[in-house]
Amino acid sequence: MDFKEELKKYQKIVNCELEKILRKEELPEKILNEAMEYSLMAGGKRLRPILVLSTYKIFKEDIEKCMPYGIALEMVHNFSLIHDDLPGIDNDDIRHGKPTNHKKYNEATAILAGDGLLNGAYIVISNDIKNTNLENEEDLKNKLKVFNEFSVAVDRMIAGEYVDTEYEGKEISNKYLEYIHKNKTGELIKLPVRMGAILARASKEDIEKLTRYAEKIGLAFQIKDDILGEIGDEKVLGKPVGKDKKMKKCTFVSKYGLKGAEEILEKITNEAIEELKDYGKKAEFLKELALYIKNRNK
Amino acid sequence: MDFKEELKKYQKIVNCELEKILRKEELPEKILNEAMEYSLMAGGKRLRPILVLSTYKIFKEDIEKCMPYGIALEMVHNFSLIHDDLPGIDNDDIRHGKPTNHKKYNEATAILAGDGLLNGAYIVISNDIKNTNLENEEDLKNKLKVFNEFSVAVDRMIAGEYVDTEYEGKEISNKYLEYIHKNKTGELIKLPVRMGAILARASKEDIEKLTRYAEKIGLAFQIKDDILGEIGDEKVLGKPVGKDKKMKKCTFVSKYGLKGAEEILEKITNEAIEELKDYGKKAEFLKELALYIKNRNK
Repeated sequence: MDFKEELKKYQKIVNCELEKILRKEELPEKILNEAMEYSLMAGGKRLRPILVLSTYKIFKEDIEKCMPYGIALEMVHNFSLIHDDLPGIDNDDIRHGKPTNHKKYNEATAILAGDGLLNGAYIVISNDIKNTNLENEEDLKNKLKVFNEFSVAVDRMIAGEYVDTEYEGKEISNKYLEYIHKNKTGELIKLPVRMGAILARASKEDIEKLTRYAEKIGLAFQIKDDILGEIGDEKVLGKPVGKDKKMKKCTFVSKYGLKGAEEILEKITNEAIEELKDYGKKAEFLKELALYIKNRNK
Repeated sequence: MDFKEELKKYQKIVNCELEKILRKEELPEKILNEAMEYSLMAGGKRLRPILVLSTYKIFKEDIEKCMPYGIALEMVHNFSLIHDDLPGIDNDDIRHGKPTNHKKYNEATAILAGDGLLNGAYIVISNDIKNTNLENEEDLKNKLKVFNEFSVAVDRMIAGEYVDTEYEGKEISNKYLEYIHKNKTGELIKLPVRMGAILARASKEDIEKLTRYAEKIGLAFQIKDDILGEIGDEKVLGKPVGKDKKMKKCTFVSKYGLKGAEEILEKITNEAIEELKDYGKKAEFLKELALYIKNRNK
């Protein structure tokens, strides 16, 4: 399997689906819709929907069935980026190498575009559930479970963002650092893997195994983010480097040093891959994805 | 029926249910939860959940069945107030006679508290749907329909708020003024009436009739808001008066004059009440509610 090719293929499918949900009509709120589209199509990695699709694919081939949940997740992810970038929160000007939403439009538009994306995720989910054949009890049950886990995970993400903001520039305990990572980043990486597995009717045991994989790559993702925030290439990364240090933000690097953070990243990535060993070739993409998260430079 | 007594009874039931969903644990995000509680319990009229309950009660007695949807709506209503009050949007300092959320806490907390309330509404809905007996096909179908209508109505509300913000201080056509009212205020008054009727298994004809009632009281609510914004008592109202005029905001009063607005209010209230005539005593509360909206001074 050529991982890079496979990744591109997935990204293309996701982008194509995202295009479909965008509204191009001449509505009075046209610019609000454009602002939502601006962030949604700004060139994200599509990591979360791809996790839904590729986990689902371990068990079943008809990936279009889980697509709405991946799309909803990407919308929520972009909502959180828009709101985090706001002057009242992180006050960031650049994201994916482009002006942030409130810089491109204005603050009011950015707040409401974020709101619209968060709420829009639930329009996508409700449309899919409403159209489920009620006779198909197992699928329906799984979708309702996924809808519930989705809403709870987003709640945890918001809480994590709050605690992160609250403790910016303050001394922070290991317990709180862990709490921030687990909630702010971890929940929305664990969720897509669980959603993919649940929607594909995986067994309880498989769901648990894949949840452990997801928790580990979620942590790896955060550690790598912290490392890139310290020594990444601003041009490649598309956002400022060294800001965490300047803001005295508590990160894995500030806590364990650069070498320490890299060692934890290596260890946790190997552990994640270990969780996949029962699935053989079927989980090759997820394995490569774990390595990609570790090795990425943006 | 003593309307004031009945209204208080409903408000008490709703407040009691809202208390149950509040989180009092010593979580790292404790202050975020407090900020959500602060706005949720700041003394709103609970008009929207009461509309769900009292419409449901025309058809069925077990109002606890539709309660989660009323609660979810009240959460969304409060999310919209918090975000509208933000410095980046309306920049309001006072709401219900108290400091607005970002004044009491700070901007970051207010943004995230709003996000948490919007998302929290979907936690409440997903919990209720997940616990529905799948054998009970009609109720399940109705709940999925209501979930979908809910998400679409919130989207319309956000769009309405956007257009309102966009056109502040600018000349505005009748078409756009109508669009703002229909979306920003109207959708979230129409929705609870429809939800109550759908969840109570009302006939298609009854749902349509009550939808017309709701559209009319929604418009009446907006006209009265505009009138109070012009000539209300600041102390009773708990928010500044005359701001619309100062901001050159387009309102029913600026468009039709005070007398003109009062005439439309009278006419539309009578039309709303006319829609209820088939339900006799069972709709007495909804009838009194229409009069209450017309006559309120806050």
